Amino acid sequence: MTPPVTTPPAPIADMLQAGSIAVIGASDDLSKFGGRLFHLLVRHGFDGAIYPINRKRQSLSGLPCYRQIRATPTPPDLAVVAVPRDHVKAAVRECAQAGTKAAIIVTAKFSDAGPEGARLEAEIVATARRHGMRLLGPNCLGLISPANHLVLCASPALYVDRLPRGRIGMISQSGALMTTLFDRAQTRGVGFSHCFSIGNQADLDLCDFLDFLADDAATEVICAYIEGVKDGGRFVEAARRAQAAGKPLLAVKAGRSDCGAAAAFSHTASLAGSYAAFAAACGDAGVVLMDHPDAMVMLAAALTRFAPPARIETGMVTTSGGAGALAADLLAEHALPLSRYAPQTLNRLGAHYAPENAAANPLDLGTSRRGESPVVEDSIAALLADPETGILLCPLTTAPDMAALAESVLQGLARAEALGHRKPCLVVLQPGQVADEARKTLRERGLFYFDEPGEAVRVIDGYRALAEARRRARRDSAANSPAGVLGEMLGGLAGALDEAKAKEVLARFGVPVNRGELAKDAAAGQRAAEGMSAPFAVKPVSPDIVHKSDAGAVALGLATPLEVARAIDDLRTRLSERHPRAEIEGFLVQEMAAGQLEMFIGARRDPLFGALVAVGAGGALVELLKDTALRRAPVSRDEAREMLAGLRVAPLLHGFRGAAALDLEALADSVSRISWLAHELGERFIELDVNPVLVRESGRGVTAVDARILLKGG
Amino acid sequence: MTPPVTTPPAPIADMLQAGSIAVIGASDDLSKFGGRLFHLLVRHGFDGAIYPINRKRQSLSGLPCYRQIRATPTPPDLAVVAVPRDHVKAAVRECAQAGTKAAIIVTAKFSDAGPEGARLEAEIVATARRHGMRLLGPNCLGLISPANHLVLCASPALYVDRLPRGRIGMISQSGALMTTLFDRAQTRGVGFSHCFSIGNQADLDLCDFLDFLADDAATEVICAYIEGVKDGGRFVEAARRAQAAGKPLLAVKAGRSDCGAAAAFSHTASLAGSYAAFAAACGDAGVVLMDHPDAMVMLAAALTRFAPPARIETGMVTTSGGAGALAADLLAEHALPLSRYAPQTLNRLGAHYAPENAAANPLDLGTSRRGESPVVEDSIAALLADPETGILLCPLTTAPDMAALAESVLQGLARAEALGHRKPCLVVLQPGQVADEARKTLRERGLFYFDEPGEAVRVIDGYRALAEARRRARRDSAANSPAGVLGEMLGGLAGALDEAKAKEVLARFGVPVNRGELAKDAAAGQRAAEGMSAPFAVKPVSPDIVHKSDAGAVALGLATPLEVARAIDDLRTRLSERHPRAEIEGFLVQEMAAGQLEMFIGARRDPLFGALVAVGAGGALVELLKDTALRRAPVSRDEAREMLAGLRVAPLLHGFRGAAALDLEALADSVSRISWLAHELGERFIELDVNPVLVRESGRGVTAVDARILLKGG
Repeated sequence: MTPPVTTPPAPIADMLQAGSIAVIGASDDLSKFGGRLFHLLVRHGFDGAIYPINRKRQSLSGLPCYRQIRATPTPPDLAVVAVPRDHVKAAVRECAQAGTKAAIIVTAKFSDAGPEGARLEAEIVATARRHGMRLLGPNCLGLISPANHLVLCASPALYVDRLPRGRIGMISQSGALMTTLFDRAQTRGVGFSHCFSIGNQADLDLCDFLDFLADDAATEVICAYIEGVKDGGRFVEAARRAQAAGKPLLAVKAGRSDCGAAAAFSHTASLAGSYAAFAAACGDAGVVLMDHPDAMVMLAAALTRFAPPARIETGMVTTSGGAGALAADLLAEHALPLSRYAPQTLNRLGAHYAPENAAANPLDLGTSRRGESPVVEDSIAALLADPETGILLCPLTTAPDMAALAESVLQGLARAEALGHRKPCLVVLQPGQVADEARKTLRERGLFYFDEPGEAVRVIDGYRALAEARRRARRDSAANSPAGVLGEMLGGLAGALDEAKAKEVLARFGVPVNRGELAKDAAAGQRAAEGMSAPFAVKPVSPDIVHKSDAGAVALGLATPLEVARAIDDLRTRLSERHPRAEIEGFLVQEMAAGQLEMFIGARRDPLFGALVAVGAGGALVELLKDTALRRAPVSRDEAREMLAGLRVAPLLHGFRGAAALDLEALADSVSRISWLAHELGERFIELDVNPVLVRESGRGVTAVDARILLKGG
Repeated sequence: MTPPVTTPPAPIADMLQAGSIAVIGASDDLSKFGGRLFHLLVRHGFDGAIYPINRKRQSLSGLPCYRQIRATPTPPDLAVVAVPRDHVKAAVRECAQAGTKAAIIVTAKFSDAGPEGARLEAEIVATARRHGMRLLGPNCLGLISPANHLVLCASPALYVDRLPRGRIGMISQSGALMTTLFDRAQTRGVGFSHCFSIGNQADLDLCDFLDFLADDAATEVICAYIEGVKDGGRFVEAARRAQAAGKPLLAVKAGRSDCGAAAAFSHTASLAGSYAAFAAACGDAGVVLMDHPDAMVMLAAALTRFAPPARIETGMVTTSGGAGALAADLLAEHALPLSRYAPQTLNRLGAHYAPENAAANPLDLGTSRRGESPVVEDSIAALLADPETGILLCPLTTAPDMAALAESVLQGLARAEALGHRKPCLVVLQPGQVADEARKTLRERGLFYFDEPGEAVRVIDGYRALAEARRRARRDSAANSPAGVLGEMLGGLAGALDEAKAKEVLARFGVPVNRGELAKDAAAGQRAAEGMSAPFAVKPVSPDIVHKSDAGAVALGLATPLEVARAIDDLRTRLSERHPRAEIEGFLVQEMAAGQLEMFIGARRDPLFGALVAVGAGGALVELLKDTALRRAPVSRDEAREMLAGLRVAPLLHGFRGAAALDLEALADSVSRISWLAHELGERFIELDVNPVLVRESGRGVTAVDARILLKGG
């Protein structure tokens, strides 16, 4: 019988401050994980007790070896398990029994290698929990904590004399990617507080580490490489906690494409889930979702090195007109604006440049009147002080003395910073080996750099996304829920609701629908039409006819109640020929709504992140163009307005080319109401589709013309 | 009086094989252009005579100095002018008088610095031409010719022991960018045949160098960084010549955005011109137009190192599931497919992998059963031999011994190549310093590498573009010109043609238009309608009313000739109220055409590249989405069909979601005919707009409903 199991508090801080660490599988064979890990732990000066566990050796690197955990002088606070898979369970049991509070399991081929491995993994977790021990891994590369001089990771990236310390915390579901990002970052002058490779997350998971870093004093910015999230709600909560702590959370998630999702799944057995739902959750929780992991780390570096920019307009100083022109094209590709320098800046630049050259953005150092050094320094300092410039980008190409050039950039930056201008200065060293000295100069003087302009532009784009995330977080997102309404009507609702039922629900939630009535026959249809305004439409209601708008199954533009009656007779005749077996429940007689633009509003329940609401332009064409905004439900009217503003059809709503502006307010209101409907339906909700929603001119409202709702049960 | 001037043949081959070179401005001051250039010329072992010209020195680097060109033992074949601007003209004159056949002018601030500089530049060109001397520059960084051990360039990128020699020829309008690309490439194991910095192109221009490289035996692939083209026709001709020689021409052009265009213009005084027109010309001439100059050079490296892939499907071998998943996402972002390995490949991989892991693309080395070395080699060799895989991408992350890993990759590649599998193998070394040994290994063994996966994916995308360019070049582009028609009607045509006139021209060119007749009054309108099919539309014809479709100025959906008569009376009354001064020439009575989709066809004359034809979906929405294909006119029906296939609305033409397919053939025919019309109008043509063109179901044709044509004169 399994005893009751409780989850003890996440002991991540304790792991990092362990007074004693056992390395199970330690050796002096550097071709093995255990050997390298032990070597690197010793090399980087861990100041607690290290207990190498190795049955065949008396000592390793001058430290006494132990045959087993029980033999160590004190029970180790933390154990690292780097032994073949079949020995892991016994090792964990031994640690747990000895009173060790946490273990890192490096070994792979557990739940990442099929059901048998998953069973073994579950047994190991159960064993640990019985003794109140927590686990990192398995199938992970451990952790690197420059803030604590602690290395529990076997990567060759750690064969360095000094760990690159910074204020970036990193969490990665891929160990190899983590150590690669770590190495690439240190080469470019960027360091970390702590890096965690979380592997299969059998016990401690992504959110535990997010929580730790949100509270950790050594960390200012958090980077996460994610393949799949286990608990959507907890992720959002953890992300909000980081945001509340003032720490930007940047994330890259594999699985944007189906192929990427499949690859991520086979990698760490993470259900990649819907990327779109994850992106919507990130938007909701203030997470900056990026596409490139290197750019993520570089944005984090920029955030820890500089003050956040007050504006996104970018100024450029370059050694090459060509490189400047191409960087300007890259910024434009991301719709990032260049700055126009203020008059006082033009004055300052006038000391070195003719007026037309001083006003140019990119500012080309080659157009200056004199030599190099003071020009570079002055130009950098002037643009960093420019009130119209939020970010400075410096694409530097081959130059006679690149190290001196880097020195001048540093001096310009120092001068600006001494005057309180702490805005981001992003230096791109575009050459290869010619710039190696300059790279060293910058790195040693605490300034990171890029190797090509595209990544710097992605960082600027990240700054914009972060500003947007912060703006959203500041805003009060209270929305008006038509609360209570739902309870009254839910009793009878289940399964697939047809158009009439779905519209009834929408109408109760305050979404305008066109009037309609179900008529059994022509006479009833005529009577129904007499109470409405022309023109009318007639559609058969039948569970057997799915595509109502197929040729012949819908009558539109009927001008009088008499025409409605005739249309019902005609339709009945036609349907009896085409669909002789279809059961016809009746005919829906509707007022035909008019509108300038067709939109759709949809919602679905994501298994991880709950109800999501979508809005986009309707009709085949735009469906084809996939112009849709997606957010977690519910959304307020303000948020709905933001969703609309991000659509490519947004200009049509505002009145394109002299056309009248459309009723954005009414549309946003319906999006918000439908999001609340989806939200309040809770677990019962599957999906909902309102298409088209006709939008009229400003002040004239919208009308939901067709709708369906799918609920569980029924 | 200026004597008659002729342009002597472009002497580029002669420049590269000069037996004697004078360096005007040579010194031992390495902070100066002339000093560095002289030093580097000597350093790289030029085997002809070097004449340093320097009035203050007896000798430099052991070579005798000369006070002036006249004093050299023989007239130099080639002179490099690196003296202050005000001395350039005299230096050029002296060279020309001495019989020197070519000069490279490094000095800047000529036409790149305003009208005064442009005048001086023109004088210098005139001086040279009078003596049959040709010029490279001014405002250039000269040339680097590893194929000839010749360096006439002052860049610090050349302080290397061995020039990186390859079969890539490079032409750049930016000197700093050229030397930066050169250095970055040599760091990554890529070399060149010749590199030319062409500066202001005062005499020898881009096309001269394109022609040279197309004929040059040492060059297999050509890369060009372009800011502006002087002569569109010559560019297309030169590009076709390269294509005929079997040499891919890859180009990057600054000025995709307005900001980039402005920056490029201020840089080398090149009129950036319309990027879209340039792109259309590239499509026409088989040029692969790329966005990133580094990716351009890397594609060139791949083209010179491997055989072209027979298919674009990509296989992946990776050390990291995470890196593989992200690379798969990047490929998907570019709509590049992953391969599915053939059964024999799965068999081979079965030696190392469980079946589910062997079938995975990306293939994760970490999922193999055994150690590293034979697995890597076998995996690489197996995928290079896989018939379903066209390209192999290897994203490599940190690994215990990266140099050994690189060695294994090389062995797998060598084994595949020995068996005749020469398909591209693109290695990405994602770490920073940890991979430096591996980089060295690959570089020294002749395999280039990438630092991050995005660039490799851009190269794969370039392969696809190149295959497309070759396919287009192979196809017979003969189109049916309705030749002769135009001559008959052109006499009377000039200025702005109104709808009726424009449609007459279109109809003569075989483009279907809806029938219409100009009626002076209601009675005439009624008679006109009696000869056509209902429904009808009526529009006033007036030079004073531009926006006919403004509310109230058009009557649509008229069912009978009588309704037409009434509508004309109504319109006249309404117009006399709203536009009392408008001169009404009459009313256009038209058959109302119906269609499933609105498209537009347009054409305009580009000052550089002649007539261009465009087609896209019509209506405000799609205009907003900028879904347009643009090509140089004329285009054949096949080419028009390709243009349509590339549109985002293409699925609608093919029948989207069960809708009927539309008349693609008729639409392509009209695009081709309109392109011929624009082409044959020649210099007189300004622009033409047919919008909307209504497209009906397949077999039912298209109708041009509105049109205008603008010609010169009138």
